[in-house]
Amino acid sequence: MKLIRFLYKNEDLYGLLDGDKILVLPSLFDWLPRNVEDLINTGINAILELERTINDVPVREKEKYLISINEVQLLAPILNPPKIICLGLNYRDHAAEQGARIPDEPIIFMKPRTSIVGPNQPIVKPKFVKKLDYEGELAVIIGRRGKYIPVSKARDYIFGYTVFNDVSARDIQFKDRQWTRGKSFDTFAPMGPYIVVRDQVRNPENLRIRTWVNGELRQDSSTSNMVFNVYEIIHHLSKVMTLEPCDIIATGTPAGVGVFMKPEPKFLEPGDIVEIEISEIGRLKNEVTAEI
Amino acid sequence: MKLIRFLYKNEDLYGLLDGDKILVLPSLFDWLPRNVEDLINTGINAILELERTINDVPVREKEKYLISINEVQLLAPILNPPKIICLGLNYRDHAAEQGARIPDEPIIFMKPRTSIVGPNQPIVKPKFVKKLDYEGELAVIIGRRGKYIPVSKARDYIFGYTVFNDVSARDIQFKDRQWTRGKSFDTFAPMGPYIVVRDQVRNPENLRIRTWVNGELRQDSSTSNMVFNVYEIIHHLSKVMTLEPCDIIATGTPAGVGVFMKPEPKFLEPGDIVEIEISEIGRLKNEVTAEI
Repeated sequence: MKLIRFLYKNEDLYGLLDGDKILVLPSLFDWLPRNVEDLINTGINAILELERTINDVPVREKEKYLISINEVQLLAPILNPPKIICLGLNYRDHAAEQGARIPDEPIIFMKPRTSIVGPNQPIVKPKFVKKLDYEGELAVIIGRRGKYIPVSKARDYIFGYTVFNDVSARDIQFKDRQWTRGKSFDTFAPMGPYIVVRDQVRNPENLRIRTWVNGELRQDSSTSNMVFNVYEIIHHLSKVMTLEPCDIIATGTPAGVGVFMKPEPKFLEPGDIVEIEISEIGRLKNEVTAEI
Repeated sequence: MKLIRFLYKNEDLYGLLDGDKILVLPSLFDWLPRNVEDLINTGINAILELERTINDVPVREKEKYLISINEVQLLAPILNPPKIICLGLNYRDHAAEQGARIPDEPIIFMKPRTSIVGPNQPIVKPKFVKKLDYEGELAVIIGRRGKYIPVSKARDYIFGYTVFNDVSARDIQFKDRQWTRGKSFDTFAPMGPYIVVRDQVRNPENLRIRTWVNGELRQDSSTSNMVFNVYEIIHHLSKVMTLEPCDIIATGTPAGVGVFMKPEPKFLEPGDIVEIEISEIGRLKNEVTAEI
């Protein structure tokens, strides 16, 4: 189940993506919530049930509510998350490339919801930012409220997965030492292109994750290199804060970010195209533009 | 205008506080939004207009909608902020007590909404936190959406002010170096007791701010010691991220936090009472309790 959000005739809608067709859910069933956040709040079980209900609808009937992906403008799958929690130093290869110690508990920071943009929307490079960088990441979307979640139960709290770019202004991030400001600019959290509901991902600990800039492969790793896997992350975070439906957890980036490239760093400039692909999930593409 | 939020007969309501009486606004005017966030979203001008409308209501009529503050359970004035942005090292006296350099741009981190509690609600000390500390702060509530806000216009974007306690687990904050995790626990953002609408604060650059623990005065400073005043903070933050109505900005803490006390640190323990008072705003009181 690929849950996709989009603008169609100026309406913020969502549906199921199948190939290049979208089944518009709130049109098919008028009893469904009007937006994705409310849908996720109905609970993961309700949504798995919904999938069965959809399967029972005759193809002829469903065809009335199919539109082409080319007719819509894609949006980020979540626009109003209660929180966006991001992990730092959560890949062994990324810790190694900067000579950093592997943490024994997750190091976190948060991004504001105003940093979210969807697939194909621009990453705007602010005029006063000099060292713009990408970080390809697997994001987990929380589906259920919880505190002190054991690792063995963590999967039950996951709604699904998407691709996330933790865009970073390295000049500001390193100057401040606290990472938040340099990662909080508007458009610095591209996300999408859709949410893959958790049942479709066989093993989140073994997904290939790659990032290209203008077609040049920059990051090529696997979620198996994570220091804390997604279940351990949920466990650790839930010891600190109550997790809520629609929370987004960006699980850290592997080796290959621009700032640590050898022999010298390569930063993003207007016109650059960043693409991140995670196997079994999808590919997120965004172009860098100059601030007007 | 003191805007206070509370539970009354299990309903989440709000009103104007006058002495120990609350005028229940959504009861007085049934056309008003049902919650504080929606009210603030109607805009600061609408709310100043509302004040005039209330003044025109005959006292006899208003008396029907007055209840005593003793009949209600106070809530934090904002429960669902889009973001909670906090400043570090924003008082010269606090930077001095730890030998830190004064920043030339604001150092920020964010707290999750799940850390919010209201006046008189407990600060829960997690079992595995050893060094629990307070930070008395002036919080600004944003009233209007904005980006690249000049200092000279910043006041227009303020809805009001409240008292904020940036509760911190120093052991985790200093171990991680990134401050977020140690400051993000549930109940680590006590806030209130109400919002003072901006017109009632003569000069936010000259407010006395004091914190007591069990009646012992620990912090006694003035917002005049801020490195960046509230208008400069709004200017700088809005260069990074779009500010939105109901955003909360905690403007940093002055000298006198427990961890830097001489000859040795004094941390919070269950049973301790923390009170923070800011002149022209109010007093926020919370008790520390042990996690069960």
